[in-house]
Amino acid sequence: MKVGELNYRTIWPGEHGDAVEIIDQTKLPHRFEVARLKSLADMVQAIKTMQVRGAPLIGAAAAYGLALAMREHAGDEQLRQTARALLASRPTAVNLRWAVQRMLQCLELAPVAERADLAWRQAAAICNEDVAINQAIARHGLALLKAMHGAQQRPLNILTHCNAGWLATVDWGTALAPVYAAFDAGIPVHVWVDETRPRNQGASLTAWELGQHGVPHTVITDNAGGHLMQHGRVDVVIVGADRVTRSGDVCNKIGTYLKALAAHDNDVPFYAAAPSSSIDWQIVDALREIPIEERGAEEVSHVGGRLADGTLAVVDILPPGAAAANPAFDVTPARLVTGIITERGICAAKGLSALFQEFQS
Amino acid sequence: MKVGELNYRTIWPGEHGDAVEIIDQTKLPHRFEVARLKSLADMVQAIKTMQVRGAPLIGAAAAYGLALAMREHAGDEQLRQTARALLASRPTAVNLRWAVQRMLQCLELAPVAERADLAWRQAAAICNEDVAINQAIARHGLALLKAMHGAQQRPLNILTHCNAGWLATVDWGTALAPVYAAFDAGIPVHVWVDETRPRNQGASLTAWELGQHGVPHTVITDNAGGHLMQHGRVDVVIVGADRVTRSGDVCNKIGTYLKALAAHDNDVPFYAAAPSSSIDWQIVDALREIPIEERGAEEVSHVGGRLADGTLAVVDILPPGAAAANPAFDVTPARLVTGIITERGICAAKGLSALFQEFQS
Repeated sequence: MKVGELNYRTIWPGEHGDAVEIIDQTKLPHRFEVARLKSLADMVQAIKTMQVRGAPLIGAAAAYGLALAMREHAGDEQLRQTARALLASRPTAVNLRWAVQRMLQCLELAPVAERADLAWRQAAAICNEDVAINQAIARHGLALLKAMHGAQQRPLNILTHCNAGWLATVDWGTALAPVYAAFDAGIPVHVWVDETRPRNQGASLTAWELGQHGVPHTVITDNAGGHLMQHGRVDVVIVGADRVTRSGDVCNKIGTYLKALAAHDNDVPFYAAAPSSSIDWQIVDALREIPIEERGAEEVSHVGGRLADGTLAVVDILPPGAAAANPAFDVTPARLVTGIITERGICAAKGLSALFQEFQS
Repeated sequence: MKVGELNYRTIWPGEHGDAVEIIDQTKLPHRFEVARLKSLADMVQAIKTMQVRGAPLIGAAAAYGLALAMREHAGDEQLRQTARALLASRPTAVNLRWAVQRMLQCLELAPVAERADLAWRQAAAICNEDVAINQAIARHGLALLKAMHGAQQRPLNILTHCNAGWLATVDWGTALAPVYAAFDAGIPVHVWVDETRPRNQGASLTAWELGQHGVPHTVITDNAGGHLMQHGRVDVVIVGADRVTRSGDVCNKIGTYLKALAAHDNDVPFYAAAPSSSIDWQIVDALREIPIEERGAEEVSHVGGRLADGTLAVVDILPPGAAAANPAFDVTPARLVTGIITERGICAAKGLSALFQEFQS
């Protein structure tokens, strides 16, 4: 997608094959900076500190992390250690596991001397597939939004939580892909952007990327969505997903569950958009089995932004010494989910198995 | 309640009768400062900018605003103008209207020359009544929390939204009055404190006052409560109210409705604590009739706190030029409310009329 006049993806191989470059998402929306990652350790750090984040992008980043590691040592032991380091970097999004497993399946069978090149090509393939998958999600979602807008005169009001736009993927996004497609097709849309505390990915990333593309949007606090739905000011909710179970439970950024409850209470359709790599076919009980990442309390206590003179600063909003807790994800039960938008089409939350029959045992 | 070693209320008459003093709540939790208000204009400004806030405290502040105005001119026209200025300062909490009407009913019948003294005494009476009412709420709520804790070994986990502690009243608080009473009675309690964006009254005021009293608490983002309830980590939700209808709908800080939905979905009891002055007996349809204050977008875009060196600063978290909306309250329908804790006792949301029969026509 465009940043100013230039087209960007969120991750790409460096020119001389000695590094991977990423948009440093911890600097947005205040600074647009490209970071250069030269080693596995750099990539693990980038994933942990959320310089790259978003389930699909984490998968792509893990693939490139393996590629970077293979350039140094490509033996079986190194391969296993690298996989472990990447899998431990963030626990909730299943795409990380999906990407690492796919890389391992390919690399383990290859001669050690060929693994580095193969890993590099495989990572690039994962990235290109992600883009194609998101374009398919965009097409299916566009048809949905078009039908919803119908003949109404006013813009279609879409509420989204966190960032599931192109910054959360390699390009195009998941939840926002249909929104970009609708906007580009001339359907009037307006996006309510949940700021998404504690890290404010809505306020910082979603608002920024919608702004770069010219899509009308308004940032709201995470508290406001229920009120807007009560007053008919939200036509549809679309969120991304860090992990979707075969039964249609959606694990996503903390607070998603609250929006799903409000949507259900007000008859507002609630969709999750996710590539099949975000589906966990092994999980039975989402609430018990999906590990919910507990992140540092300083993400709650400290808020970053621009001072009046434009310099960046971080402020502590709590009384000195106050404790804070920071669970990063929650689970929205399938009963609250109207449908899942995948690259194969849109299905009811309970209908994933029919759409992906090759995963049925 | 205690601030360090000293006992404070949130508002009190200045020593020489020429001013009203308040704790400046816009400075907490970073600075404890007392502000001196010398005129009606000072008081209206203090209410608008939320140096004083919280439905019961706004009522007391309005009473003292009238007292300040009467010291300059006490004629009928001045009385009406003063009432109008105060009523326009904030639209949602009904206590403002209640206090102004009570003052008018008293002052209109008094000779002009006596109005200033009478207003001063009447404002003090309203403050003392507020304290007594909150102590009654504390007693009724204590019995509830005691029964809930029962014989369990672990602390009782109470979730609260915004600040309905002593800082929201003249003293003791509404939602937190039972919590202080339980803590003082030796019942182990732990409070989950919603930070309450955009103004962070939970993170700044509730966390501060609980900390001053030694009550164990943990600040969470507004997004986290639903997840905690899904995992059995919340025993009861208690919030305050800016306006309660005769049918038990609760208008309170934006986001309350989302917590009530989550409580309902997880069989967690949800209580609102409110003095009878917060009940609006005239409203039939809460969603349509209660005016929801729309505050400035800068409350969403800008966050205040302490820099690492202790100085106070405000940071802009949004991309330059991004739009934001800021509805300040929402309505929780009575069907989601387990009960209302009033000075007369606790009743089902639909049972307010039975508890306050004198208001039935």
